[in-house]
Amino acid sequence: MRMYDLIHKKKEGKALSTEEINYFVKGVTDGTIPDCQSAALMMAVCLKGMDDREATDLTLAMLASGESADLSAIPGLKADKHSTGGVGDSTTPVVIPTVASCGLKVAKMSGRALGHTGGTIDKLESVPGTRVELTPEEFANTVNTVGAAVIAQTGTLCPADKKLYALRDFTATVESNALIASSIMSKKLASGADVIMLDVKYGSGAFVKDPEDARELARLMVRIGEGAGRRVGAIISSMDVPLGHAVGNALEMYEASDILCGNAPADKLEVCVELAAGMLKLAGICDIESARKMAKETILSGKAFGKLCEMLEAQGGDTTELRNPEKRRYAPYRYELKAAREGYISFMNTEEIGLAEGMLGAGRTALDGGVDYLAGLEIIKKTGDKVSPDDTVMVLYSSDKALFDAAARRLENAITYSDEKPEVPPVIYATVGI
Amino acid sequence: MRMYDLIHKKKEGKALSTEEINYFVKGVTDGTIPDCQSAALMMAVCLKGMDDREATDLTLAMLASGESADLSAIPGLKADKHSTGGVGDSTTPVVIPTVASCGLKVAKMSGRALGHTGGTIDKLESVPGTRVELTPEEFANTVNTVGAAVIAQTGTLCPADKKLYALRDFTATVESNALIASSIMSKKLASGADVIMLDVKYGSGAFVKDPEDARELARLMVRIGEGAGRRVGAIISSMDVPLGHAVGNALEMYEASDILCGNAPADKLEVCVELAAGMLKLAGICDIESARKMAKETILSGKAFGKLCEMLEAQGGDTTELRNPEKRRYAPYRYELKAAREGYISFMNTEEIGLAEGMLGAGRTALDGGVDYLAGLEIIKKTGDKVSPDDTVMVLYSSDKALFDAAARRLENAITYSDEKPEVPPVIYATVGI
Repeated sequence: MRMYDLIHKKKEGKALSTEEINYFVKGVTDGTIPDCQSAALMMAVCLKGMDDREATDLTLAMLASGESADLSAIPGLKADKHSTGGVGDSTTPVVIPTVASCGLKVAKMSGRALGHTGGTIDKLESVPGTRVELTPEEFANTVNTVGAAVIAQTGTLCPADKKLYALRDFTATVESNALIASSIMSKKLASGADVIMLDVKYGSGAFVKDPEDARELARLMVRIGEGAGRRVGAIISSMDVPLGHAVGNALEMYEASDILCGNAPADKLEVCVELAAGMLKLAGICDIESARKMAKETILSGKAFGKLCEMLEAQGGDTTELRNPEKRRYAPYRYELKAAREGYISFMNTEEIGLAEGMLGAGRTALDGGVDYLAGLEIIKKTGDKVSPDDTVMVLYSSDKALFDAAARRLENAITYSDEKPEVPPVIYATVGI
Repeated sequence: MRMYDLIHKKKEGKALSTEEINYFVKGVTDGTIPDCQSAALMMAVCLKGMDDREATDLTLAMLASGESADLSAIPGLKADKHSTGGVGDSTTPVVIPTVASCGLKVAKMSGRALGHTGGTIDKLESVPGTRVELTPEEFANTVNTVGAAVIAQTGTLCPADKKLYALRDFTATVESNALIASSIMSKKLASGADVIMLDVKYGSGAFVKDPEDARELARLMVRIGEGAGRRVGAIISSMDVPLGHAVGNALEMYEASDILCGNAPADKLEVCVELAAGMLKLAGICDIESARKMAKETILSGKAFGKLCEMLEAQGGDTTELRNPEKRRYAPYRYELKAAREGYISFMNTEEIGLAEGMLGAGRTALDGGVDYLAGLEIIKKTGDKVSPDDTVMVLYSSDKALFDAAARRLENAITYSDEKPEVPPVIYATVGI
């Protein structure tokens, strides 16, 4: 078998066989296939596509390229959730304690932030003392006693995906449903959960711009997961409007706490309820309607907030700030961004908001870089809101005053105004598999 | 400017600006753009195309990446010809002395064989003593006194093309009209000729399979050349049928000599006449009809043969074998390939014939490898010919008897038979610019 022939075949729009995909992934893993050949194939896949069978084969080959998590020490069904990456969309600290409170165990592995999208791990670490690197025994113990735990992904899961993802990120070959789906699903399958609920984002801050493309991506991921014997569902949600108000590590944990204490922005609550309900339904705990009711009640009653604190404390975290809003730390500097004109906010580019968040110090520019947990921004006015030039649209937070200027300019350019009240898309576009 | 953005832009099907193409070619030349990014861009170009302006910009940037030949020591118009690569299609030893005999100077740089297509330089070197590496003074002197000289391309012409071509060859990104045209034209422009006549091949042994695609490629090359201020024309000719009878270095030189002594296979004669006529017409020597007549007469009268010998001798060659058929050397071993059945030859895969030629020792498997000048094959029966099992279809020549088996098997598979007399396509499909 020659890599040249695989590239040529895909360039001609033909499907690669299972053997060919295994050959490719093995060569990527052991380094025998040069990056330039992999890059050419990735571009051909981006432009010519892969059918479901190929995407499943690619997922399974990347899964087999490394170790999988052994969750056998945790009896019963284990659930996980995954967002394809958005801005200020930290639903994990809400959804996980919610389903755990309803009796469904969550054993979750998460990534760190890179680029313009946030990482759950960084958000959890903004709670002082929280350890995200537990031993397998600690992880299993926490899930078994508390009902939930979240740890950082280990490097031994899916090494082929790790290499390919870095190459795709460097060669502008990220946007391909088959490649995105197989990358996400190989890691999710390797994490060992039986129930997987996906939040597939579309819009300006997401990989996929169009909601129908996002639905196709969701369907593909569900099919891949089901083909591997897991229970998988998805929601398709908009990133054309920021979700909730907080963007930043500590800020998003504070917002999650507020939601779990009954003070919930409607859009973020809706997404959290649907994700939790999907997990409960897939686990067979109840039908989707009852699951929605159960999830909402668990969130708004404060029951799930107790579970969040319990989980964080089991992982070494100090939840004083989450429990006591008056004790919360904020970045030393704040900057109020005013509306540029009288009118309605007609569009907010969430990708640009994510990039501005990074410029304030909340993002990571290299994989081993640190982040400013307190940096970020609060979105006071959102798409569809009426504003006057006096109104504060966003409040920016940073530990370095000098960072405000460039970030504010970026944010000003990220906001579009109109005279007419714009239509705001529903936060959830569709669901798949639930 | 970031290479990532260029790749992304082309992936989306957008045209790259002149500045972006210059940035890319500069980065390829100085090695600052990694191969994986270049490969991704090349695949995107293969699948999304480049418009004429982009292809011209790419050509000019690759031309500017190295030195150009300085032909200022040769007064008057200088002509060159180029074939996009076929099998057994050595028209150069016929065409060049023909136009030189008609008063048009030829200062030609040629390449060596690689893969399944032959190289003019190897064919000339099969004439004992011929030197293909002349100093610039020797080159100019020979053209000025004899009217023609052919030398090997130097490595300093178009280094960007050299690197990109090697990468494309490795990453299955060769087939793209814009990339093929800019690669060929950058080298032709760097060679310094004022008049450039192209033989664009289509069919089984060529880069381009379809004649209309070949015509598009020819039109693009003509436009690029004209944009750079040269006079360019092209013929589109079939490689679905082998041209002439000889395939091999010395064998093709013998055949060229026979053609120039009046013993010409009709198909090869037609192509040689049209190429020579195109050059004479582009040089303004006469109109195309008179040019065809003049070229044919020059070939069949023996006048051009004298010029070929004169040129080879000026480059140190011993033309005894060309002049005296009875003194010609042949490979020590020959093998007669018989027809597989009664019927007509309906198709000959010329790419496979080229590969079989290589297996007999006439090809080069690495850039610095040697070749067996005497190896090759004579095609006795061609597409459209009626055959019986007793008939010899081809005679194989090699210095190593052990090579016959595999080559003969390959050739047997390259020939298709039919009961009905097949239609044979005309050897010249169209002309462009003449």
